Amino acid sequence: MTLDLRRQARIGLDESVFCIGKTPEQISAILLRLTQAKGRALLTRLDPKKLGALPQALRKRLDYDPSSWTAFLGRTAKPRSKPQVAVLTAGTSDRAVAREAARTLAYYGHATTEIGDIGVAGLWRLMERVDEIRRHPVVIVVAGMDAALPSVVGGLVPGAVIAVPSSVGYGVAKGGETALRAALASCAPGVTVVNIDNGYGAACAALRILNRAAT
Amino acid sequence: MTLDLRRQARIGLDESVFCIGKTPEQISAILLRLTQAKGRALLTRLDPKKLGALPQALRKRLDYDPSSWTAFLGRTAKPRSKPQVAVLTAGTSDRAVAREAARTLAYYGHATTEIGDIGVAGLWRLMERVDEIRRHPVVIVVAGMDAALPSVVGGLVPGAVIAVPSSVGYGVAKGGETALRAALASCAPGVTVVNIDNGYGAACAALRILNRAAT
Amino acid sequence: MTLDLRRQARIGLDESVFCIGKTPEQISAILLRLTQAKGRALLTRLDPKKLGALPQALRKRLDYDPSSWTAFLGRTAKPRSKPQVAVLTAGTSDRAVAREAARTLAYYGHATTEIGDIGVAGLWRLMERVDEIRRHPVVIVVAGMDAALPSVVGGLVPGAVIAVPSSVGYGVAKGGETALRAALASCAPGVTVVNIDNGYGAACAALRILNRAAT
Amino acid sequence: MTLDLRRQARIGLDESVFCIGKTPEQISAILLRLTQAKGRALLTRLDPKKLGALPQALRKRLDYDPSSWTAFLGRTAKPRSKPQVAVLTAGTSDRAVAREAARTLAYYGHATTEIGDIGVAGLWRLMERVDEIRRHPVVIVVAGMDAALPSVVGGLVPGAVIAVPSSVGYGVAKGGETALRAALASCAPGVTVVNIDNGYGAACAALRILNRAAT
Amino acid sequence: MTLDLRRQARIGLDESVFCIGKTPEQISAILLRLTQAKGRALLTRLDPKKLGALPQALRKRLDYDPSSWTAFLGRTAKPRSKPQVAVLTAGTSDRAVAREAARTLAYYGHATTEIGDIGVAGLWRLMERVDEIRRHPVVIVVAGMDAALPSVVGGLVPGAVIAVPSSVGYGVAKGGETALRAALASCAPGVTVVNIDNGYGAACAALRILNRAAT
Amino acid sequence: MTLDLRRQARIGLDESVFCIGKTPEQISAILLRLTQAKGRALLTRLDPKKLGALPQALRKRLDYDPSSWTAFLGRTAKPRSKPQVAVLTAGTSDRAVAREAARTLAYYGHATTEIGDIGVAGLWRLMERVDEIRRHPVVIVVAGMDAALPSVVGGLVPGAVIAVPSSVGYGVAKGGETALRAALASCAPGVTVVNIDNGYGAACAALRILNRAAT
Amino acid sequence: MTLDLRRQARIGLDESVFCIGKTPEQISAILLRLTQAKGRALLTRLDPKKLGALPQALRKRLDYDPSSWTAFLGRTAKPRSKPQVAVLTAGTSDRAVAREAARTLAYYGHATTEIGDIGVAGLWRLMERVDEIRRHPVVIVVAGMDAALPSVVGGLVPGAVIAVPSSVGYGVAKGGETALRAALASCAPGVTVVNIDNGYGAACAALRILNRAAT
Amino acid sequence: MTLDLRRQARIGLDESVFCIGKTPEQISAILLRLTQAKGRALLTRLDPKKLGALPQALRKRLDYDPSSWTAFLGRTAKPRSKPQVAVLTAGTSDRAVAREAARTLAYYGHATTEIGDIGVAGLWRLMERVDEIRRHPVVIVVAGMDAALPSVVGGLVPGAVIAVPSSVGYGVAKGGETALRAALASCAPGVTVVNIDNGYGAACAALRILNRAAT
Repeated sequence: MTLDLRRQARIGLDESVFCIGKTPEQISAILLRLTQAKGRALLTRLDPKKLGALPQALRKRLDYDPSSWTAFLGRTAKPRSKPQVAVLTAGTSDRAVAREAARTLAYYGHATTEIGDIGVAGLWRLMERVDEIRRHPVVIVVAGMDAALPSVVGGLVPGAVIAVPSSVGYGVAKGGETALRAALASCAPGVTVVNIDNGYGAACAALRILNRAAT
Repeated sequence: MTLDLRRQARIGLDESVFCIGKTPEQISAILLRLTQAKGRALLTRLDPKKLGALPQALRKRLDYDPSSWTAFLGRTAKPRSKPQVAVLTAGTSDRAVAREAARTLAYYGHATTEIGDIGVAGLWRLMERVDEIRRHPVVIVVAGMDAALPSVVGGLVPGAVIAVPSSVGYGVAKGGETALRAALASCAPGVTVVNIDNGYGAACAALRILNRAAT
Repeated sequence: MTLDLRRQARIGLDESVFCIGKTPEQISAILLRLTQAKGRALLTRLDPKKLGALPQALRKRLDYDPSSWTAFLGRTAKPRSKPQVAVLTAGTSDRAVAREAARTLAYYGHATTEIGDIGVAGLWRLMERVDEIRRHPVVIVVAGMDAALPSVVGGLVPGAVIAVPSSVGYGVAKGGETALRAALASCAPGVTVVNIDNGYGAACAALRILNRAAT
Repeated sequence: MTLDLRRQARIGLDESVFCIGKTPEQISAILLRLTQAKGRALLTRLDPKKLGALPQALRKRLDYDPSSWTAFLGRTAKPRSKPQVAVLTAGTSDRAVAREAARTLAYYGHATTEIGDIGVAGLWRLMERVDEIRRHPVVIVVAGMDAALPSVVGGLVPGAVIAVPSSVGYGVAKGGETALRAALASCAPGVTVVNIDNGYGAACAALRILNRAAT
Repeated sequence: MTLDLRRQARIGLDESVFCIGKTPEQISAILLRLTQAKGRALLTRLDPKKLGALPQALRKRLDYDPSSWTAFLGRTAKPRSKPQVAVLTAGTSDRAVAREAARTLAYYGHATTEIGDIGVAGLWRLMERVDEIRRHPVVIVVAGMDAALPSVVGGLVPGAVIAVPSSVGYGVAKGGETALRAALASCAPGVTVVNIDNGYGAACAALRILNRAAT
Repeated sequence: MTLDLRRQARIGLDESVFCIGKTPEQISAILLRLTQAKGRALLTRLDPKKLGALPQALRKRLDYDPSSWTAFLGRTAKPRSKPQVAVLTAGTSDRAVAREAARTLAYYGHATTEIGDIGVAGLWRLMERVDEIRRHPVVIVVAGMDAALPSVVGGLVPGAVIAVPSSVGYGVAKGGETALRAALASCAPGVTVVNIDNGYGAACAALRILNRAAT
Repeated sequence: MTLDLRRQARIGLDESVFCIGKTPEQISAILLRLTQAKGRALLTRLDPKKLGALPQALRKRLDYDPSSWTAFLGRTAKPRSKPQVAVLTAGTSDRAVAREAARTLAYYGHATTEIGDIGVAGLWRLMERVDEIRRHPVVIVVAGMDAALPSVVGGLVPGAVIAVPSSVGYGVAKGGETALRAALASCAPGVTVVNIDNGYGAACAALRILNRAAT
Repeated sequence: MTLDLRRQARIGLDESVFCIGKTPEQISAILLRLTQAKGRALLTRLDPKKLGALPQALRKRLDYDPSSWTAFLGRTAKPRSKPQVAVLTAGTSDRAVAREAARTLAYYGHATTEIGDIGVAGLWRLMERVDEIRRHPVVIVVAGMDAALPSVVGGLVPGAVIAVPSSVGYGVAKGGETALRAALASCAPGVTVVNIDNGYGAACAALRILNRAAT
């Protein structure tokens, strides 16, 4: 096991623990090492079953969020006064992904403005909130199926727009592939994209932007 | 050569001449037969070069539209008083496809309302025209890249919405494949889709709707 | 939770509840809101297990159809005298999708003519019913595998033809992808297509057509 | 250069010369060797430009068919009294592929019944010829786009049905890929398939059947 | 339920019962109808669990083969004296598909020569049996992964070669997609292909050939 | 023609003129309108041939860059003192895309640090420049083929990393599709991605970040 | 059952038992035959459940490794003094594949140097071990997601580099497809690739190299 | 321009010049730098037209091979006494790729044994040469379409087998994609694969093996 403990110094982000494909034993061992070195850790994609298979002593120390399958170990940063990131979702099924982004930002002390159910099929829901959304320097947009939302948002707000295609949908939605392609082909200029369902990655991209703006 | 001269009687539409993959000689022979039997014909995908290779006598009798590569041979129906089909395009490059739809409808005597450049990146352009668009029982929406326009339109108008994905774009746009998938995965209920760049097919679908409503 | 309660006024269709990716708690909350506001609701893709996880009081008020995984909450419109939509299926396995379409139409008060097992491998079955089918202004055709049925039907009937590719089949059938592509490439003019297994979407498209014809 | 001169003895078919990817020099050299050894040869995919680049002496000895880009060198077998293979096409653009099959069969002394323009959008054209088609032990069906024809034919005739998907069409037709998949997923039992546009392969498959039946 | 009881008369094959996507109730009802009309039936893809859910009285009348998930109901034809079809498999995992082909042929009274484990990685195994295989007018070749076996066999035997790509393998094997494409691109002339794992279809294709040769 | 002249006010970016799919006449007309309204314009994907087809009077007023096929019309902003965006390329063939990004930034008055030929096959080339690159708040990385460079850079620098997959390469590179997928699946946290060859989009994303940081 | 017992003599490798798609009975029968003939055998992809279904007497004789699902039956060769193969992994989840390679090599008496967790997001971890890795004539690199590691390694070491794409990851990672394509498009010259997760195949490739170098 | 002049020292291979996507000016500049530093260079994918656009003085110094589009600048190593690499091709059209491999090996002083036209459709051609092929420690196999040749060769020879899928073929061959997948899914153990048409990469892989065996 070789952890990248120097990552924070290099890029301003900790190595987090991506739990898919790791056994409970491997996760425990990594957490032990990380907390010894850094005092805290962020876990993603920790499903409830795998959580239950962790040693109880460890489990009790975790701040676990079942809606996003994320957990914090150890102290987290205090939320700053005003949210600089808005996290938008097109539909109810996109929530888990949005929560993963919000929790990752929370781990680093950033509050977020979460706005749900504003898919373009009922456009007025977005239009009512546009002024509020425009105030954030970074906007994360989670959308599945045809992913029309990032394009519409990208045409309305001046800040950084990070699209997270979600795997919501069936048939041609193809596990998020269509949403991904639509977001990348967006007709709005300057929309960037991360992997399907990758709320964590979108949050890290936001952090890279905010960390530098802070300097 | 076996033409489907009974098609009009069966489904209310003539057999048209799709010119891709046919030699000028084959096109001439088909036109001869069609005009003998029906007095008129619609040609699609007739590129200027192939047009030039047709016998001059025939060429002179064609009403050719270079923007859509369509041609009429013989008399066409008179336009009815009020357009029942709106044809929308997201960008300038979608025009050729929209024109193919409009010309096909014109061949059958239907006027159309053509509204261009209303892609969702500048949403106000669509919003200014929504009331006008809503008045049409059938709306054809041509859009490439992320094809967000059919979803937004589908959420705003009550009539039939037929999406035509266009092959505009590069990279992930993949010759219209992404627009096609996005339109099929549309979050707006009841949007239907035809093949990429198939303005002719969208017009035929509109005609099927209008023909029956007329009875 | 932001419901699109104004959708009926805008496009003549209620927001329905697509149950995939939603928890029983989320579904219950949405239903509560919808019935308060609209008095009724349509649920799709509600599998029997999730149905069983809903509160009993709510469950008892649902009119649930296990063959299509749809449910009605509250009063539905009375069926009109004569069906205007025919729903055709190629094989027994396409029935669930056809039922989703028929149930959606029933929710809005439309009776349907359902005709099953008329795949083109035994063409006489379709030919015996063609005259009956032709009398409907809208024909929904559900077919999987090679989806040859929409093309044959499209060449025989004058009304609107809406193809629903189904995920029936294995190997190259690829979960409906081949049926989808074949339907989009149909050699019959004016056939439109919705997403794989999307009986609900086909019904909404039919409603858009019928609603406007009614005016 | 190592020719498979023993192929006829092993499998009843000569090695033919597939001209794509070969220079005129390579083709000339192969033909020299083949005629020395076997007295005759079949060439496929010989486009007119490459034909023109062959040495004139050689060119004069070729029986070239511009519609199928095939050529015979040397004596061919005499046609037998009655055709045992029917070659059907859905549309005019499928002709070149059908001709490649017919020419390959002709090289081996088999006459064919060619029936064109019987695509399923105008079903009566096929129905009028069914009795005639049924009399052939082998039926080759060339069809592009949605390739519904092989399924319909497979449900109507008792003999071997070999589908040749053609690259006719645009958009989702994807160079014949959709026709290929649809033919493989055919709902008619026992339809077999060869590569896109592979009229030559279909003819060879027919020959394998006929050669054995002859014994 | 509309069965195609006239299929035998048209194409020499009964309608068989493909059990995927059908409920035990639907299967029972179909069998009742088929046996009333035809006295016998062939079932494919009947997994042991669904078999167990059929009514016991029906189950007892079935001749079920667990290795191929096929069943016969009622009398089957007597096997003819000498097998005319050889069924080859590349590896042990291809057996189930080969058995489906052999059982389908048995239903129609045809014995088969089954030869297993002759994948090209150990070429001598095939070479030792080539003379025996060559004596059959039809050779069915089941192979997964790279499907090299049909090409090698196609270069060695004169009869009809029908390739059945199997879903054996992982990674790039992609559920049989690679085997399918490789078989279609075979360098041996006249190899035909059916859908992935479609042993039933290959047998039907063989029957089409043998039925006509018999006349 | 409906231009989005209010875009600058909404999102801080002008509508630029994407020249693919537009005729020289359409481009001239758009430029006329844009310069009347805004005094300046940015053109992308203007190939030399289309440039040559523009009216000479217009052409003379364009500041054209043949390496990136971009042009400026009218005054551009003055470059600011220090570059805030580094534009990296893996190989010589990625230059055109990098130049499109740099030119777009220049249009808005931003200087860039361009560093070429630092593909990971010769890692020392990147390592020698890491300290310099780290000083930029935004890093655009253009890479084709396996697109390993964005991952390595993402693990070394703290600022925003925007990957632009390029269409460099052949075979599995598939016109940039592999680079695109690799960049999206990057093991480095927080790398965002734009469409293949979309240097313009990457620059717009950078501008969204810088515009907000400036406030 | 026809085993390839002559394989060792031909190519220096035993036929191993790939357990996917084989029943416990088939595996037992094959092992019986193999041990009679060769005294030993290697099993791959033997999951714990299938292991449990083997006869106990057989199970007790197996040297089973649960991390790689491999088993040895009978004597294995003694490890040689110094490892000639380094097996590298990008992340913890790639271990199972790496172990399959190491176990296959162990079966043939080769020790390996296993180095884990050296993904390029934390490049220093690789750089610290480069000198050690360079000493091996063969380097196997297991990496999923973007598979940037084989490219970086290929640019740093002179020996044979065999990339094994792993199915680690989600979304665009597509079960290893992206890693596979990225490895094949590697910008480092002379990197070769095997199937996704195919640790066994990589080890066999290494053995082919080492066996010949030994002579 | 930053050349990787230290590559030979690191990995035993020079940086070569891949000419696709580079202008004649860029190629000239790179060659100037390379010859100053190293005295020699290898160019790949230099098509005749681009060759003609190079300055004449430079062109005269190139040893150009039109069949493989490769060129040497400066002295090349003397061929060693006996070829250690066999380069096999399935058909005539695979020659260009095989030549690229042979030329790359020649640049480094390695002679090769080239054996053409041994595709598996005529298996005897391969069997006659097997003993000769087996004597080489490295065998490069170029094959398109179904790429059955690498599997058959992999089952017959003990040395390293490197498959190069070629883009030969049409339809499902898909520019080499099917050959690539078939080679990766090879049933013969230990076959490795490089990118489509990448003769250069196969040669580099061979060099990595031979360089280390030499020590």
